Amino acid sequence: MIRVGIIGASGYAGAELIRYLLLHKEVKITYLVSDSNEGKPISDAFTSFLGLDLPVCEKYDINVLKEKCDFVFTARGNGGGMKIAAEILDAGIKMIDIPADFRLKDPKEFKEYYKIEHTEPEILKEAVYAIPELHKEEIEKARIVANPGCYATCSILSMAPLVKNNLIDLKTIIIDAKSGVSGAGRSKLSVSGLYCETNEGFKAYGVTTHRHRPEIEQEYNKLSGKISNIIFTPHLVPMNRGILSTCYADCIETLDNEKLNKLYKDFYKGCPFVQVLPQGTQAVTKNVYGTNYCHISTMFDKHTNRVIITGAIDNMGKGAAGQAVQNFNIMCGFEECEGLIMPAVYP
Amino acid sequence: MIRVGIIGASGYAGAELIRYLLLHKEVKITYLVSDSNEGKPISDAFTSFLGLDLPVCEKYDINVLKEKCDFVFTARGNGGGMKIAAEILDAGIKMIDIPADFRLKDPKEFKEYYKIEHTEPEILKEAVYAIPELHKEEIEKARIVANPGCYATCSILSMAPLVKNNLIDLKTIIIDAKSGVSGAGRSKLSVSGLYCETNEGFKAYGVTTHRHRPEIEQEYNKLSGKISNIIFTPHLVPMNRGILSTCYADCIETLDNEKLNKLYKDFYKGCPFVQVLPQGTQAVTKNVYGTNYCHISTMFDKHTNRVIITGAIDNMGKGAAGQAVQNFNIMCGFEECEGLIMPAVYP
Amino acid sequence: MIRVGIIGASGYAGAELIRYLLLHKEVKITYLVSDSNEGKPISDAFTSFLGLDLPVCEKYDINVLKEKCDFVFTARGNGGGMKIAAEILDAGIKMIDIPADFRLKDPKEFKEYYKIEHTEPEILKEAVYAIPELHKEEIEKARIVANPGCYATCSILSMAPLVKNNLIDLKTIIIDAKSGVSGAGRSKLSVSGLYCETNEGFKAYGVTTHRHRPEIEQEYNKLSGKISNIIFTPHLVPMNRGILSTCYADCIETLDNEKLNKLYKDFYKGCPFVQVLPQGTQAVTKNVYGTNYCHISTMFDKHTNRVIITGAIDNMGKGAAGQAVQNFNIMCGFEECEGLIMPAVYP
Amino acid sequence: MIRVGIIGASGYAGAELIRYLLLHKEVKITYLVSDSNEGKPISDAFTSFLGLDLPVCEKYDINVLKEKCDFVFTARGNGGGMKIAAEILDAGIKMIDIPADFRLKDPKEFKEYYKIEHTEPEILKEAVYAIPELHKEEIEKARIVANPGCYATCSILSMAPLVKNNLIDLKTIIIDAKSGVSGAGRSKLSVSGLYCETNEGFKAYGVTTHRHRPEIEQEYNKLSGKISNIIFTPHLVPMNRGILSTCYADCIETLDNEKLNKLYKDFYKGCPFVQVLPQGTQAVTKNVYGTNYCHISTMFDKHTNRVIITGAIDNMGKGAAGQAVQNFNIMCGFEECEGLIMPAVYP
Repeated sequence: MIRVGIIGASGYAGAELIRYLLLHKEVKITYLVSDSNEGKPISDAFTSFLGLDLPVCEKYDINVLKEKCDFVFTARGNGGGMKIAAEILDAGIKMIDIPADFRLKDPKEFKEYYKIEHTEPEILKEAVYAIPELHKEEIEKARIVANPGCYATCSILSMAPLVKNNLIDLKTIIIDAKSGVSGAGRSKLSVSGLYCETNEGFKAYGVTTHRHRPEIEQEYNKLSGKISNIIFTPHLVPMNRGILSTCYADCIETLDNEKLNKLYKDFYKGCPFVQVLPQGTQAVTKNVYGTNYCHISTMFDKHTNRVIITGAIDNMGKGAAGQAVQNFNIMCGFEECEGLIMPAVYP
Repeated sequence: MIRVGIIGASGYAGAELIRYLLLHKEVKITYLVSDSNEGKPISDAFTSFLGLDLPVCEKYDINVLKEKCDFVFTARGNGGGMKIAAEILDAGIKMIDIPADFRLKDPKEFKEYYKIEHTEPEILKEAVYAIPELHKEEIEKARIVANPGCYATCSILSMAPLVKNNLIDLKTIIIDAKSGVSGAGRSKLSVSGLYCETNEGFKAYGVTTHRHRPEIEQEYNKLSGKISNIIFTPHLVPMNRGILSTCYADCIETLDNEKLNKLYKDFYKGCPFVQVLPQGTQAVTKNVYGTNYCHISTMFDKHTNRVIITGAIDNMGKGAAGQAVQNFNIMCGFEECEGLIMPAVYP
Repeated sequence: MIRVGIIGASGYAGAELIRYLLLHKEVKITYLVSDSNEGKPISDAFTSFLGLDLPVCEKYDINVLKEKCDFVFTARGNGGGMKIAAEILDAGIKMIDIPADFRLKDPKEFKEYYKIEHTEPEILKEAVYAIPELHKEEIEKARIVANPGCYATCSILSMAPLVKNNLIDLKTIIIDAKSGVSGAGRSKLSVSGLYCETNEGFKAYGVTTHRHRPEIEQEYNKLSGKISNIIFTPHLVPMNRGILSTCYADCIETLDNEKLNKLYKDFYKGCPFVQVLPQGTQAVTKNVYGTNYCHISTMFDKHTNRVIITGAIDNMGKGAAGQAVQNFNIMCGFEECEGLIMPAVYP
Repeated sequence: MIRVGIIGASGYAGAELIRYLLLHKEVKITYLVSDSNEGKPISDAFTSFLGLDLPVCEKYDINVLKEKCDFVFTARGNGGGMKIAAEILDAGIKMIDIPADFRLKDPKEFKEYYKIEHTEPEILKEAVYAIPELHKEEIEKARIVANPGCYATCSILSMAPLVKNNLIDLKTIIIDAKSGVSGAGRSKLSVSGLYCETNEGFKAYGVTTHRHRPEIEQEYNKLSGKISNIIFTPHLVPMNRGILSTCYADCIETLDNEKLNKLYKDFYKGCPFVQVLPQGTQAVTKNVYGTNYCHISTMFDKHTNRVIITGAIDNMGKGAAGQAVQNFNIMCGFEECEGLIMPAVYP
């Protein structure tokens, strides 16, 4: 049994991590850090944990962590991971950072988008941006992993086969993404977060300015060896969970539906969590609700010589905690699927 | 008082028409046709009409119609309007067809997309495709009006200022549209229409094949005098009402946010139902819930030299019954806003 | 035209009041008070008001009020009405207080439930607790009206025919009430108010302690001349609007379904906004969405010799702003229905 | 490994059973019966199963069943289980019937409420009505188990400590229950099942006539040795999953909150899936979403000398498939919690 700590246990990502790890047969959760719930059971923050065997919440303390943990997930807000990464790694403990601290490789870009000075540029260099389907070998060797953003994961997986194979014009990519509300987290309170302000409404937000755009471009560039230049437009859907990315791009050469679908199926062969749907079936967020799966639909539009790819994930699953556990499995040498084989909660 | 008949009163569009017309001070609803509710009060179909002064439902009968009505709205399924249009017009009664029978000017295209042979090509020629903000003069003189589709209305209004002024490349338009569920109507029953199959889920549908694509292209072509070639991708949002169209296009020359916003404000000056939002404010479907308004947000993306326009309507309001009443007002010489000045039901 | 002021225009009740008053042909809204939006258009608080002719928000000032208003609605938080009631009434201006300041006739009870000392006991005596179907004559003569609570309105209307006619044991009444989320208002922010914490969940709250219990008992006592002793249990439903009260009581003598339904129909004869549904049809909150209607279903349970009455209202309509406008009409001698005849926004 | 068959795999209960059984380390699903999907993968019925290792759907055939299964769950509509129970039991295979065929012990009552003649009165006698917290010993020895109804499970668990200990007047019990929509299943299509007809609405249904009333009374009678006489009023909540039962009863002797809460905690000591919440914390359906848990809140109302108990379950979990797996574990001698220890999917 590997002893696991979660720093930031009382947010949505922390809670989702606990949910997955409780199903993992090689894991014992030994350390839950939540400053606001110090000394209290985690079921005070989430009544849904009542009756489950979990440690009491504590304050963060590197000495306690060293004593209690073999592996650490950090799930505090942006900027929380880089404060403690050095001492965790120095203690010989591997870590996965779920927020954004180690995603953008350029510290200047990080500062531009997150308004925080990066204090750990060396660790930033070392950290592996980790989508298991694309970076498995690096992840196996990593001491520290940057868990990708939810929108980014969905958008990168949706376009990777085309980007990697240089079949589309990287300057024409448009990603029109839609997310459930849990992506906003549990800690920020505002009028716009109220139930009634969201329910029965739909809107775009962060148009041209969202933080996941540079993250997506960085990975497209890495995959293709070229410079991408994308539009990324997120929207808010009145539902708890789920992201759908609808991705458009001009084809460099003419494709057809069969070739396109086959390209995707071949690309993701051997990837248990990416399901390329049969031609004509559309990806639906409901079908991955509560899981680590990504469903992808492919469509070639003869009318405009473009592709229309839709990818669906659970933002809390493949978009956060699920992918973190998948990365954890790879880092620790476990079966990649351990703790993650479960169907969606449907309906 | 003008005496109005509604053919197809027991569908969602028919009911919404009743809702608007009850607030119209020049209208008396005198004839409600619903075959399935013959002889029953309309409150048997919609309990929400209990206590309101409305006629009992009848079967369709041209002689009764002639006697009771000065104006007719048809709101039956596609194909229902063209069966009765000739005899209504021959009786000297003006009509507005809410479904699709008279929207596509090319009968072959109509057949291709709706799988119905067009039996009234002459009336089709005469019928005015009627978005009041764009075709007011034609509407004033019309005997028969084709009320535009919900997605089409939203997408055309969202891009008209750019299309009309030839500021964008018409081959690059991508419309990523999202709709609430009421657009599917009340008459078709299927597993996918069940509450649980839709709630907490999001998906695309009709990708590359939706019937509103040719309708939108037809109107873009008319506006620009050129040939457009668009992608139109509709999605289903778990909410009752509302459409948001997120529209992308390459700019022919470089714009900026101020110019773009001003272009829209100027274009829609004097249009009470189109509100161009201040730069930086996003259109939200909630803000037009239950109304005939269209909210539009404009954004120029320097990064890609493209525009990102979002337009929001209520698919039952500006997308159907509201716009029908607005057209009715223009056809009858009433104040354009009569019966339509009301704020959204918020929250 | 009567010139109307709204004190507290930027809350949900204030906004709903504006929505109704814009449809009222005898009203001109001349004064909107919102401290947080001073100097700004009300569309800054609710974008849904864009394009409508409304005054700019101001701070509260009795001198301005005197100059601009013939009638005032107060819609600030509890305690806000009693601070300004005296000076408004002294100026010869009639007012309706939508919050709770003048509902409970016993100042001690008010303090017990609202934790605020009542500073206007004389005005409290004078104020008319105003459900138009029950207190029309008093309302006609009132200078100041206490607009009833949303739950209270629904629960009182649902049981009034039985209570008034002494057909049930007043010690056995149980009201199991369910409300949409807008009842919580727009000003309080908390984790439990977040979309994700409410959506896809259902719960009771305020069990045995809710403030509307004494309000309901007070009115039952007044109606019956006896002492009632009720259970009132509110629940939160994941929807924006609507209250359903399911009311139970032991019958004093045996009833049957026909007698019971007739009793209700007779009791509410001539009441345009209370619709007693035909036996066997259930009240549904959707059917009164956005309106001032109350739908009531009656059922006698032979098995237990009890009645089961369900009443449905829109908490923002008959439960707040709609009823306020109905009271306003009666106070001002207008047609009781003016501005309120509209069907539900359905679906 | 025990080889399990599911008869009726393409309904919601069948799918939920698959979800739980895939997490069960002693189970191999070997036989899925779905007439409408014969020869197709179950992922054709539920795309959410894509990528999981499951057998292809087949028609029902007792010989195939005998060959492939050690244990059978039947999850077809009411009446489906009794047609095949005899031949399954004769083959020495144990079974759990999830629908209602073996719940009501009186065949006449079964016919009255389900409009089906009971063809297996002997098996009906033998079948164990199985709530593990109340009937564990019988379940251990059972060949055939009747899995209780969703409402019944929640209502019985909520009141059992009081009923069993004769602390309340059994003639005064009122159960006001609320359910998410998945309880209606996937096979019946009607206008009222459409998303838009349910969303943003709340209503009672089956008032005084619901089939779970006699089921609940039967079990109350068994627990108390007396005759109960209850009101049971179900309501429909616009959400996918979850039941909340709000239960009222007159106390025979005076209780207090502490005694009451302790009574419940003692009663359910050693029951891992029933969590009695701390005094003052309310049961919320969200907190058991996707699980086999039941949360119970207790409240004594001094004002009326009554108890108010709220119980929350997931109607698909503890109300159907979860409880079936719990019963299966007991029947097969496995750890009672096997495959069921997982926190709610929250938010």
